Amino acid sequence: MLSSRHTLVAFMLLLSSSFVQAQQISGFSSRDLGKQLEAEKRLQDLPTPKGFEAHLKALTREPHVAGTPANDRVADYMAEAMRKAGMTVEKHPYDIYLPKGPGDIKIELVTPVRLPLNNKEYVLAEDPFSNHPDLDPGWNAFSGSGDATGEVVYANFGRKEDFEKLAEMGISVKGKIVIARYGGNFRGYKAKFAEAAGAAGLVIYTDPADNGYMKGLVYPEGPYFNESTIQRGSVLTLDYTGDPLTPFEPALPLDGDTKVERLDPKDVALHTIPVTPIPYGSAREIFSRMKGKPVPAGWQGGLPYTYRLEGGSSLTIRIKVDQPKEITRIHNVVGTLEGSQYPDEWIILGCHYDAWSFGATDPNSGTAMLLNLADALGALVKAGYRPKRTIKIAHWDAEEFGILGSTEWVEEFKDELSKNAIAYFNADGACTGLTFGGSASPSLKPLMIEATKAVEHPKENRTIYEHWLARTNTPEKGPNIGNLGGGSDHLPFYAHLGIPSLSAGMRGKSLYHSGYDNFHWYKTFSDPEFLSGATTAKVFGVMTLRLANANVLPLDIAQYGIDLEKHLTTAEKAIQSYHKGYSLEALKEQARDISAKATRYEEHLERKLDRAARQKTNWQPLNTAIIQLERCFIDPKGMAYGKWYQSLYASSDPYSGYASWMLPGFLYEASLESTKRLPEWEARYSKALEALNTQIGEVIRWTKR
Amino acid sequence: MLSSRHTLVAFMLLLSSSFVQAQQISGFSSRDLGKQLEAEKRLQDLPTPKGFEAHLKALTREPHVAGTPANDRVADYMAEAMRKAGMTVEKHPYDIYLPKGPGDIKIELVTPVRLPLNNKEYVLAEDPFSNHPDLDPGWNAFSGSGDATGEVVYANFGRKEDFEKLAEMGISVKGKIVIARYGGNFRGYKAKFAEAAGAAGLVIYTDPADNGYMKGLVYPEGPYFNESTIQRGSVLTLDYTGDPLTPFEPALPLDGDTKVERLDPKDVALHTIPVTPIPYGSAREIFSRMKGKPVPAGWQGGLPYTYRLEGGSSLTIRIKVDQPKEITRIHNVVGTLEGSQYPDEWIILGCHYDAWSFGATDPNSGTAMLLNLADALGALVKAGYRPKRTIKIAHWDAEEFGILGSTEWVEEFKDELSKNAIAYFNADGACTGLTFGGSASPSLKPLMIEATKAVEHPKENRTIYEHWLARTNTPEKGPNIGNLGGGSDHLPFYAHLGIPSLSAGMRGKSLYHSGYDNFHWYKTFSDPEFLSGATTAKVFGVMTLRLANANVLPLDIAQYGIDLEKHLTTAEKAIQSYHKGYSLEALKEQARDISAKATRYEEHLERKLDRAARQKTNWQPLNTAIIQLERCFIDPKGMAYGKWYQSLYASSDPYSGYASWMLPGFLYEASLESTKRLPEWEARYSKALEALNTQIGEVIRWTKR
Repeated sequence: MLSSRHTLVAFMLLLSSSFVQAQQISGFSSRDLGKQLEAEKRLQDLPTPKGFEAHLKALTREPHVAGTPANDRVADYMAEAMRKAGMTVEKHPYDIYLPKGPGDIKIELVTPVRLPLNNKEYVLAEDPFSNHPDLDPGWNAFSGSGDATGEVVYANFGRKEDFEKLAEMGISVKGKIVIARYGGNFRGYKAKFAEAAGAAGLVIYTDPADNGYMKGLVYPEGPYFNESTIQRGSVLTLDYTGDPLTPFEPALPLDGDTKVERLDPKDVALHTIPVTPIPYGSAREIFSRMKGKPVPAGWQGGLPYTYRLEGGSSLTIRIKVDQPKEITRIHNVVGTLEGSQYPDEWIILGCHYDAWSFGATDPNSGTAMLLNLADALGALVKAGYRPKRTIKIAHWDAEEFGILGSTEWVEEFKDELSKNAIAYFNADGACTGLTFGGSASPSLKPLMIEATKAVEHPKENRTIYEHWLARTNTPEKGPNIGNLGGGSDHLPFYAHLGIPSLSAGMRGKSLYHSGYDNFHWYKTFSDPEFLSGATTAKVFGVMTLRLANANVLPLDIAQYGIDLEKHLTTAEKAIQSYHKGYSLEALKEQARDISAKATRYEEHLERKLDRAARQKTNWQPLNTAIIQLERCFIDPKGMAYGKWYQSLYASSDPYSGYASWMLPGFLYEASLESTKRLPEWEARYSKALEALNTQIGEVIRWTKR
Repeated sequence: MLSSRHTLVAFMLLLSSSFVQAQQISGFSSRDLGKQLEAEKRLQDLPTPKGFEAHLKALTREPHVAGTPANDRVADYMAEAMRKAGMTVEKHPYDIYLPKGPGDIKIELVTPVRLPLNNKEYVLAEDPFSNHPDLDPGWNAFSGSGDATGEVVYANFGRKEDFEKLAEMGISVKGKIVIARYGGNFRGYKAKFAEAAGAAGLVIYTDPADNGYMKGLVYPEGPYFNESTIQRGSVLTLDYTGDPLTPFEPALPLDGDTKVERLDPKDVALHTIPVTPIPYGSAREIFSRMKGKPVPAGWQGGLPYTYRLEGGSSLTIRIKVDQPKEITRIHNVVGTLEGSQYPDEWIILGCHYDAWSFGATDPNSGTAMLLNLADALGALVKAGYRPKRTIKIAHWDAEEFGILGSTEWVEEFKDELSKNAIAYFNADGACTGLTFGGSASPSLKPLMIEATKAVEHPKENRTIYEHWLARTNTPEKGPNIGNLGGGSDHLPFYAHLGIPSLSAGMRGKSLYHSGYDNFHWYKTFSDPEFLSGATTAKVFGVMTLRLANANVLPLDIAQYGIDLEKHLTTAEKAIQSYHKGYSLEALKEQARDISAKATRYEEHLERKLDRAARQKTNWQPLNTAIIQLERCFIDPKGMAYGKWYQSLYASSDPYSGYASWMLPGFLYEASLESTKRLPEWEARYSKALEALNTQIGEVIRWTKR
């Protein structure tokens, strides 16, 4: 793919390695390429493991859940750090509907013995953080409040198919306490399906077969969940993200000038049953006492008992959750480095900063990396390399509760973003190991791949790209790069506004959402030398500088055609499985038209870049047209499962919350095995592809000048 | 396949079902078909669940290990039962080298605590057999005698690749006690590889992930291994089967007329290290105290700890086994129903009768079925349907110690068997559930398939064949029928003498080699209504009567060509993996010649059967020629891994002891990644295929008369 595109090949000696490597950089005229290569080389010398370590340590001193004073202290640290780096910093406050912390939680066996169950991590001598007084017990934000005692039903992962299987086996969960294991879907859906099936309460635990002794040595001896480790997390499942009370609108401060209409919480589809997480040491007390029929294949976990569907009448457990919620102030912290030439063209980098405990891996390894990069960009500006376009580094609040902070900001600055935003790069928990990976919207995939060719792996004596490529079985297709879905702060940018987005990082082990996710754990098991932070900052830095300084924005048009045709085939197959002979050939033909046009664009662009070496060129109209390409997928009618999801191209799977759905209009229809709305979707997709086609024509028109 | 062969299609109304079904029966002239159908119909009315149950109950009153008085009592019962059925019964005694029982076993932790480990099943209130005074503890026959104390190394399944992996990871087992789990290979190889690697002792346990609470409810609540259930078993691994002291020769009684030369036990490659099995309740005491590095992927079992490679210096265990061996009298019990017309053409049915405890599933569900069938055949004879050929029903002794009884008998009657034996049917543990399955040599596959079309499934309102076929994903290829390998008493018939063999039965759950394998367990978990015994007797009965009464023996010649070509391709691919471009095309051409000739044979045979309806025919020369077909694979030079394995066609895998090896000469060469002996093997296989081809010519010659 790369070789068919407009490229300028520059040979550059990477100082840190002993070989000369051909570097492909898209979108630069030969007149401007030299300075760019200088800037990139300088930038790559700046982020250091020491700098990353210092930020990470400072960010993760104490537990900092969204809405707490401790989280405000983190916000202040980041603001100060970015100011020092020379950025203009703004705090964007919102008043959103949030739990006031874990509230009152009781989880215990009632019969055959009265036995309270532990729901907080053990204090460990090795780990000074584990004794922090402000650590919360395990809890699920947006649990209902209630006090339920009942018999137990095990529901495996609590997926749609698990509850269906229970019903098929004649097991009712009505009035019972459901116990389900983490994994297989977003935890919020476990609560949604349990409540829909009539459960009185839900206990979620991490099974040792999924993360625990069955996987390897447990904390503190190894990185896996020990019998006290708990995954915290929100169970919010609405058909929009952001503040539950202000869909589509920013939850501006109550005391501000602009008054925003808020829903009554009673009118919002929040869960009503109590939900709480426990560790497997506590789940053992339940499973060891269950008396019913054994589970079907695939439901057995790693506790030393045959798992059973029901506990029987002799076993009753109580779950009480009293979790008051109220409108709470949160802050996004956004630093801006204004572009020297195109201040109204924005590249936005972001990561949330609120955490379930200390957040050493999730999210603040990403936060520390962004601060490390901010320091580097500041130094670069001082050295005379101010980027031509505006770079924003955003630290989002309350992502853990349901992507709240970023969504409110996106809703507040919808118009500016739609006009100005070139791309959004997400760095949530981005630096936890030495293995690079990423997902991206089509037009950003080549940018990510090219940037990894410019950065050396800190341990491997080869580039990040080479190390990445070595992990695929089909190297001829390039490295494995995912299709972006939901799960973090890119979602509002990508699925609500149609801003090309990516998520990337160097990953390793993580103690996901547990009380042990602290600096000691990070240093012991994630990255003892803090190499991933500095290296990821270089990859993000190179991607950013290329977008910021290119003559022509290096968003790849050809990739739209390629990916669209692939995803149309996938959707077609999904529909054919219940609707024989169904064809999306007409839309595929449109996708092929886009591919053909992309080839013409590349030829014209190459000529235009050649001419630009000799004559002054006004790039702005062309780039303005490029910025609008992805917006063609935005359709205000949204998805059938939620109007807020406005991108026809990408969404998160509304059943699991995790998986990426490409062409979600069709996929949702397929999930219902319905044909009813297919004509409507064909028309809406056709219109979007037509708009994209027209917009590419517009782009080509500007390359011809 | 069936439709291309010589068949007479008879329409017969199966009384037990409401549909008319086309029955294909090969090898009968229309003049004799009617009587055969009558005989089969009568036979099918005879075996009853009650009759089977009575035999099973009588056979499994007490534990009856080979060489014990209890086993002699079982022999007497069988002899008496067959005599009552009208058979001539002979006991064939042999004096073989056997352990005198479990001997003295000690297995205990020495440090960090002194802790004896349980090695006997719990006594259960539900199960009166579990308290039998004569039950042995868990033991491994042909363990070495010794007393070793040392640190522990975990070796996963103790396969060749597991010990190689340990070596690769730098873990030495020298002087250590190896703990390995059951599964993945024949337990004897665990001992062989452990000893070869320098281990001082070997403990074998059943992991709950393989058979225990991870699979389902445990005994007595369910059928799976509980924390005290132990798999017993022999660890004998010689390059021949049968008595360790008399390879190739029958171990005739020391006090008999014929004196047999015996090896000195010191010159036989018996294991020298102590080996003993333990249940997972005891293994837990070891695994919970291990301190070393965690195991690689795939080595983790179901005990609630991260499995580790080493126990470390703080954990030492002691294994002591004192297992004296001596020459011991065993008996095969063989009943004969002489054929009315061809007494020197034998069909042999067999199953061993010695057991590790009560033997309710393994082996005596097969024994009881054979006695049920003997009763039926006796009644059939009385009703005037004496079979034309001789039927022998054989009960083998000491199979559990290494296929000893049957091998000695085969060695004693080698000449008669080579001349007279048409086929051997094995019924080891054949009736433990309601799912039919089987493996067979090529020429017997169609016979088995056809017979299952004649027998109704006791629960399914359809034939055994239809129930069997419904379990394959490729029904167009017919039901799944295995290629026969090692593991039971068919081995000496098939791999030593080249007698077409099959093994079949209706299987379900089994508490393999445990102290709980008793009548209570059988009735609770295997087959509460004893239906599988009577039904399997019908299938074996129909197969037997067809072989016994057919004008032309229904051994399928075409199947040789089909299977040979398939196995040659498999062998070729195995060799090509290290020897590029290697071809067995010449042998495949010979296989195709055989297929072509088989078609001619079928045409000639059809005509001969047509003629026979009008004129008297002497079938004997033709059948004598057919009997010799499989013998063409016998090559006295045997295999490179053991001269006793004389069939070039089939063997057990000499590395796992379980898997079937087809064309073992080539497969062994491939396993060594060697090319050295390939020319020799090509020549030997070519000669065998040439001989088979010539013999088929001989068969055709007789069909032309």
